[in-house]
Amino acid sequence: DEAGIIRDPLAIERQSFAMIDAEVGEHRFDAHQWPIVRRIIHTTADFDFATTTCFSPGVVGRALAALRAGACIYCDTNMVLAGVNKNRLAALGGRIACHVADPQVAAAAREAGVTRSIVALRQGVAEGAEIFLIGNAPTALFELLALAGRGEVRPALVVGVPVGFVGAAESKEALYASNLPYILCRGRKGGSAIAAAILNQLLILAAEG
Amino acid sequence: DEAGIIRDPLAIERQSFAMIDAEVGEHRFDAHQWPIVRRIIHTTADFDFATTTCFSPGVVGRALAALRAGACIYCDTNMVLAGVNKNRLAALGGRIACHVADPQVAAAAREAGVTRSIVALRQGVAEGAEIFLIGNAPTALFELLALAGRGEVRPALVVGVPVGFVGAAESKEALYASNLPYILCRGRKGGSAIAAAILNQLLILAAEG
Repeated sequence: DEAGIIRDPLAIERQSFAMIDAEVGEHRFDAHQWPIVRRIIHTTADFDFATTTCFSPGVVGRALAALRAGACIYCDTNMVLAGVNKNRLAALGGRIACHVADPQVAAAAREAGVTRSIVALRQGVAEGAEIFLIGNAPTALFELLALAGRGEVRPALVVGVPVGFVGAAESKEALYASNLPYILCRGRKGGSAIAAAILNQLLILAAEG
Repeated sequence: DEAGIIRDPLAIERQSFAMIDAEVGEHRFDAHQWPIVRRIIHTTADFDFATTTCFSPGVVGRALAALRAGACIYCDTNMVLAGVNKNRLAALGGRIACHVADPQVAAAAREAGVTRSIVALRQGVAEGAEIFLIGNAPTALFELLALAGRGEVRPALVVGVPVGFVGAAESKEALYASNLPYILCRGRKGGSAIAAAILNQLLILAAEG
């Protein structure tokens, strides 16, 4: 019966993945990339991401190596932070922070005349972050690109999935044109749940590998 | 220049809303409903929600009255909790909780042979929640419908937006067929960000009214 089917989370996930595999059919992703794209579709029920998701060459292997070495991660919203599996991250010795809601960040942003997301990202860089999850703020992604362009940070992975109508697609095109290691979704769509889903799938792969 | 445009969050929101209005064109929503649907589209960049979002009769007015009276809210994930504007909620005297990650909930779920989401929802009901935000777990929504059917809870609002391939659409159809006050998105799509966005827009409307 229905109640029986829906009470086993792992069975639901297997069934969902089989449905996604069947509906997508042939695709352009390799064996490292597809589990990540499938996780995004699982999180959103939106097959557009099979078209819009892009990987820079070798990015998954590099990201897994960084995660296995205990990466320091910065994310741009507290929703991303809430969505990341902390047990899996801690098991690999990693840590994650978000500073966008810190009171001193709001004060510094007002003083500097920039967004809180920019000030918060700079703090993440200062703390040694090497993996960046940007699910909301184009300004944070543009700032990261500027800092990387000046050699002030060398990311092991940039997850670039801001969502929205003004600046989001443009920020992802700038990341796409960069030489940084990225996973991104072109166009307007994206969001915090997708940023968290990408990292959670990488954490699963890192623990398996 | 681009940097100038994207640094004023309110200007970005106004411009985004104008783009959404223009792209959607004529629609079937009234003046109470449209700001909520527009907020969902703003959060996802997905115009499917202009088709799938449904409101029970009079639900927005009833929800605003409950929020202005200081509602007790339960949500099914910590991502929803992270996404809700706590300052706006506190200004109206409201509060919100999520129990899905509580250690005693996991233990009780194992013992009872049900999902953590079900045990956590029951705890929210026991604490007097009258507004429910279900962005992830079909089992939580089915359980809420069962409790309401037995008269054990009388919700002022059920936001029903679980996402996924197994059970999500079915749980929302069951809510759609109920006599509860609901805002829901039919089909597979939904998610925590949408649940939070709906409540955040209601909080804005409640403060304005």
